[in-house]
Amino acid sequence: MNKNNLATRDACAALDAADPLAPLRDQFDLPPGVIYLDGNSLGALPKATADRVQDVVRREWGRDLIQSWNTAGWIDAPQRIGDKIARLVGAAPGEVIAADSTSVNLYKVLSVALAAVRARDGADSRRRVIVSERDNFPTDLYIAESLARQHGFTLRLVETDAIAAQLTGPAADELAVLLLTHVHYRTGRMHPMAELTAAAHAAGALVVWDLAHSAGAVPVDLNGCGADFAIGCGYKYLNGGPGAPAFLWCHARHLAQAVWQPLAGWMGHAAPFAFTPAYQPAAGVKAFLCGTPSPIGLAALECGVDTVLAAEAHGGMAAVRAKSLAMTALFRQLVETRCAGHGLTLHTPVDPAERGSQVSLHREEGAYAIVQALIARGVVGDYRAPGILRFGFTPLTLRFVEVWDAVEHLRQVLDSGEWREGRFHQRAAVT
Amino acid sequence: MNKNNLATRDACAALDAADPLAPLRDQFDLPPGVIYLDGNSLGALPKATADRVQDVVRREWGRDLIQSWNTAGWIDAPQRIGDKIARLVGAAPGEVIAADSTSVNLYKVLSVALAAVRARDGADSRRRVIVSERDNFPTDLYIAESLARQHGFTLRLVETDAIAAQLTGPAADELAVLLLTHVHYRTGRMHPMAELTAAAHAAGALVVWDLAHSAGAVPVDLNGCGADFAIGCGYKYLNGGPGAPAFLWCHARHLAQAVWQPLAGWMGHAAPFAFTPAYQPAAGVKAFLCGTPSPIGLAALECGVDTVLAAEAHGGMAAVRAKSLAMTALFRQLVETRCAGHGLTLHTPVDPAERGSQVSLHREEGAYAIVQALIARGVVGDYRAPGILRFGFTPLTLRFVEVWDAVEHLRQVLDSGEWREGRFHQRAAVT
Repeated sequence: MNKNNLATRDACAALDAADPLAPLRDQFDLPPGVIYLDGNSLGALPKATADRVQDVVRREWGRDLIQSWNTAGWIDAPQRIGDKIARLVGAAPGEVIAADSTSVNLYKVLSVALAAVRARDGADSRRRVIVSERDNFPTDLYIAESLARQHGFTLRLVETDAIAAQLTGPAADELAVLLLTHVHYRTGRMHPMAELTAAAHAAGALVVWDLAHSAGAVPVDLNGCGADFAIGCGYKYLNGGPGAPAFLWCHARHLAQAVWQPLAGWMGHAAPFAFTPAYQPAAGVKAFLCGTPSPIGLAALECGVDTVLAAEAHGGMAAVRAKSLAMTALFRQLVETRCAGHGLTLHTPVDPAERGSQVSLHREEGAYAIVQALIARGVVGDYRAPGILRFGFTPLTLRFVEVWDAVEHLRQVLDSGEWREGRFHQRAAVT
Repeated sequence: MNKNNLATRDACAALDAADPLAPLRDQFDLPPGVIYLDGNSLGALPKATADRVQDVVRREWGRDLIQSWNTAGWIDAPQRIGDKIARLVGAAPGEVIAADSTSVNLYKVLSVALAAVRARDGADSRRRVIVSERDNFPTDLYIAESLARQHGFTLRLVETDAIAAQLTGPAADELAVLLLTHVHYRTGRMHPMAELTAAAHAAGALVVWDLAHSAGAVPVDLNGCGADFAIGCGYKYLNGGPGAPAFLWCHARHLAQAVWQPLAGWMGHAAPFAFTPAYQPAAGVKAFLCGTPSPIGLAALECGVDTVLAAEAHGGMAAVRAKSLAMTALFRQLVETRCAGHGLTLHTPVDPAERGSQVSLHREEGAYAIVQALIARGVVGDYRAPGILRFGFTPLTLRFVEVWDAVEHLRQVLDSGEWREGRFHQRAAVT
């Protein structure tokens, strides 16, 4: 991409005209006047969702009532939608379920991972350390801390640049599980999944990947890199709606024997409707189910996943990735050229191999207020402490001209100093 | 109630005419031609729900996007709706949350209960037994089995009539936690909550109540009887929709210090948006939250809970209970008088003090097919192995004439033998 070609909005419009994914935008109901750069936090509403949810509520629940567990496929939805998500993350049918929250699913897989290491190496093994990134998304660290505390493991948090040394250095034989989020929620930095998985395996450890900011955003090949477990979020790039059910993947080699995971609820039982008093895990990934699934939430999630699967007819995740990288590069270059001298520094790797589908900028002063001033103008990104302006780029919904316009708004906010007006007070928001 | 007065459908219509709760039926969208006796499994659809869910999807999610976490109150919904549920179960504001599934919530509170006993009595204490009912709802037993296995406790399953002896006999000083479902899912038998709680406390144990078949169906006074923990289901008598978020209650005495529960996700953190790497539990019941809440599911649950709270203007849970007992007594008496000689036996206690809001009948042969024949006629109950025809009575939606009509259909099914036609094959259905 030639920087000179980016000097005009017309050049961006030309990129839109040539975009093979452009037709996919029509899948979404986007509010007029909004440039939505927060689909990495909450994906936009697919057009199909409202009617589908309404049908689940009015017909499947209201009219058909209890029989919909069978006739509407409610009971199989976690696996049916899991199979769809599998296509987006390099997993096979029967390896993924959609259920519960990301945090709850991490608890399940990390429990199984710790038990597997203990069973393999014995209770006296030195292999008692879970390694993760110090500023990994907190809920992952909290769940890992809880399990480490319960099961006599240590959670070791290291800086990003120190992860590799944990896998090959003198500490490697203490490593039980490497727990990483593939794309970092704040910086957008992407870890080399295949390389780190191989290194952790060479060290004798298991690997758990959190795909919250990856699934539907970047190509992921879980089986290709032979990872052990993965979990991920339904409400970001999968467009499943706020608080959507999350997902969980388990490599087939860990499914060869029945899985005893601690949240051993009735939906993970081998025969839930036999109502037997003793637990027997179901075969396969179904053993990771726990309580009764949520047909309404799962229907919305399925609509969202379908919007991403629709890209398969337009070049698939490779096309999504190409557009994502083009957009994040464009945004970065436009900020550098058009917002120079305003104290913004790039917080996301320039190297495409290390970049997810977002760009984070840092500013010492006023980052929160600048984000709010942009939102007031209809450019919706978000703020992450400390000092981060975070912008997510969802190739299914965004146009290149919107990237141009977003930077133009940012330039005007900075040039005018309108963010200093003090109207913008800090509030909480979900990742 | 005089049996002679029940000999006619007109007598039932007179009961409807005098029913103070009759106006509440208009809160629901009920399918025409259906007598719904399965609200104990999946509550009927409130009229308000479809529009409310649509508003959450189209406006709060689709138009307002990420800001709805703040502006639409998404982030506080688990506590706001928890406070509403609290009014139905004798709990105080700030003691209940709506989140996750019943199974996941049981995992949280039972973990805390076991840890509390261990902390109080020491690791060497003999008090290492969880007692429950042998045919308690299986998911409760599975979760208890999982935690017993993890923490070195024993799950002891006893027959219903043997529970009391566990609390006062020689085994009492082994008892760590008494885990019971207040109203039994299959038989409809209701345990004396106050009495058993007091006896378990006198034995030095803690008590966890599962209110799945109680909340919204029978009066419950958690604080009045001083229980320790409770969990319950949103999709039965609370009418929250299939797979609705469940709820969790913790007595204030266990909230005096911060609660470390194992599913320590970010929503239970003291400051979720500080994004600190170390977990610090929130004060109060909020520490029992784990992952991101589901605003769509919670909105539907809130509509359902509101239908029950609407009874407060019509005599409250006392009126609900009176109508429930009148209906279950009527059903039983009509079955006894009008379906005599067909091999049906009553599986639910006659004593009102021991009866929830359902009536279960047993038949050696054909119970499943009889239930299916009734469903084909529009009388929706359900089957539970072995040999149980289960009928739930939801006082908010049901009329006495429907009870009459349901029994009349049952009589015709039995008299005609139409259930023997073999059209009715067994399938699974969710409790």
